[in-house]
Amino acid sequence: MKKVIVIGIAGGTGSGKSTLIHNIKKQFSDEITILSHDFYYKAHHDMTYEARCLLNYDHPDAFDTDLMIDHVKALKTWQTIERPVYDFTIHDRAEETVVVKPSKVVVVEGILIFENQALLDLCDIKVFVDTDADVRIIRRILRDVRDRGRTLESVVTQYLTTVKLMHEQFVEPSKKNADIIVPEGGFNMVALDMLNHRIRALLQEEEKQ
Amino acid sequence: MKKVIVIGIAGGTGSGKSTLIHNIKKQFSDEITILSHDFYYKAHHDMTYEARCLLNYDHPDAFDTDLMIDHVKALKTWQTIERPVYDFTIHDRAEETVVVKPSKVVVVEGILIFENQALLDLCDIKVFVDTDADVRIIRRILRDVRDRGRTLESVVTQYLTTVKLMHEQFVEPSKKNADIIVPEGGFNMVALDMLNHRIRALLQEEEKQ
Repeated sequence: MKKVIVIGIAGGTGSGKSTLIHNIKKQFSDEITILSHDFYYKAHHDMTYEARCLLNYDHPDAFDTDLMIDHVKALKTWQTIERPVYDFTIHDRAEETVVVKPSKVVVVEGILIFENQALLDLCDIKVFVDTDADVRIIRRILRDVRDRGRTLESVVTQYLTTVKLMHEQFVEPSKKNADIIVPEGGFNMVALDMLNHRIRALLQEEEKQ
Repeated sequence: MKKVIVIGIAGGTGSGKSTLIHNIKKQFSDEITILSHDFYYKAHHDMTYEARCLLNYDHPDAFDTDLMIDHVKALKTWQTIERPVYDFTIHDRAEETVVVKPSKVVVVEGILIFENQALLDLCDIKVFVDTDADVRIIRRILRDVRDRGRTLESVVTQYLTTVKLMHEQFVEPSKKNADIIVPEGGFNMVALDMLNHRIRALLQEEEKQ
């Protein structure tokens, strides 16, 4: 059985993970699967919408990480999975699932994935995208206010009361678990080149076997 | 004219630069030249030994970086250089020089090389080796006391009065100029593999042209 290469990509909100992943995906389109930690937010069907709005979505406990780990293990043994779908508009897991077929490369991404030792153990290459907090909050404000129609006040309040604290408590310390740290994620072409070449080389090694 | 690949490797004292470079050199023995910033400590023939002992060797001004830049530029155009030799026992530049022939890969290394924009501009890949300050001072103490016969007191005094301050003022901020940051330098096999593969791929691209 050919080895599946698992790349972990972590980093705070607005760090540039998505841009980096987008640029990797361009290189390995049909050979790559992206698994976001966000897909695995816990289901809370038993709670009211108002109660769900008050939950802390930046804490490790917000995620069903065990299910994600099972899914990564399954993909590593070339099994198809049905991943959950999270509906951000109702803050709850949706009823449907998405069928994900195994592929040569699996990218596991999320702000908190390097906080979990079992997930870390599954990654062949661990990349932390590191961007200054001021740049990250600017990107988050632009994204949430301009693109998602939220008010500036709600974005800033959520950031200062939850996101920042969780970042400092869980995300920042997990940087130490990375193999490489990439400053300014998505726009760092030297790091992207290096990562793409390493993935390509690992794929070629597998092809030869 | 074939392109010479310049890799910059920076990081604080005891960060693991040397181990990383040693492991890169093993892969590319005859294709690689190592140019240390330490070779370019300024000559102070006009000063007494006692006066030279009191100089701050962790400040950017301690180095003849312009000469190093000229040498990197010369190596990039396949010219042979004569690099200076620094004699640590007398804290002065030695009379002799070392002839350095051009090679496909030039590694430029030192604690302060990412502090200088002209040096940064010459590097194709900029790697910062990032290791916690406590681990770095432990390594420095072991090296200087056990291997170089210095007293523990002199190592600690120098560290607290100069090395630490210069690190915080110049080395740590220069980390931002790196393309990738490698935690725990010399013992980080995933990062080493990635770097070696990238160098190999760049060499092969040059071969094809």
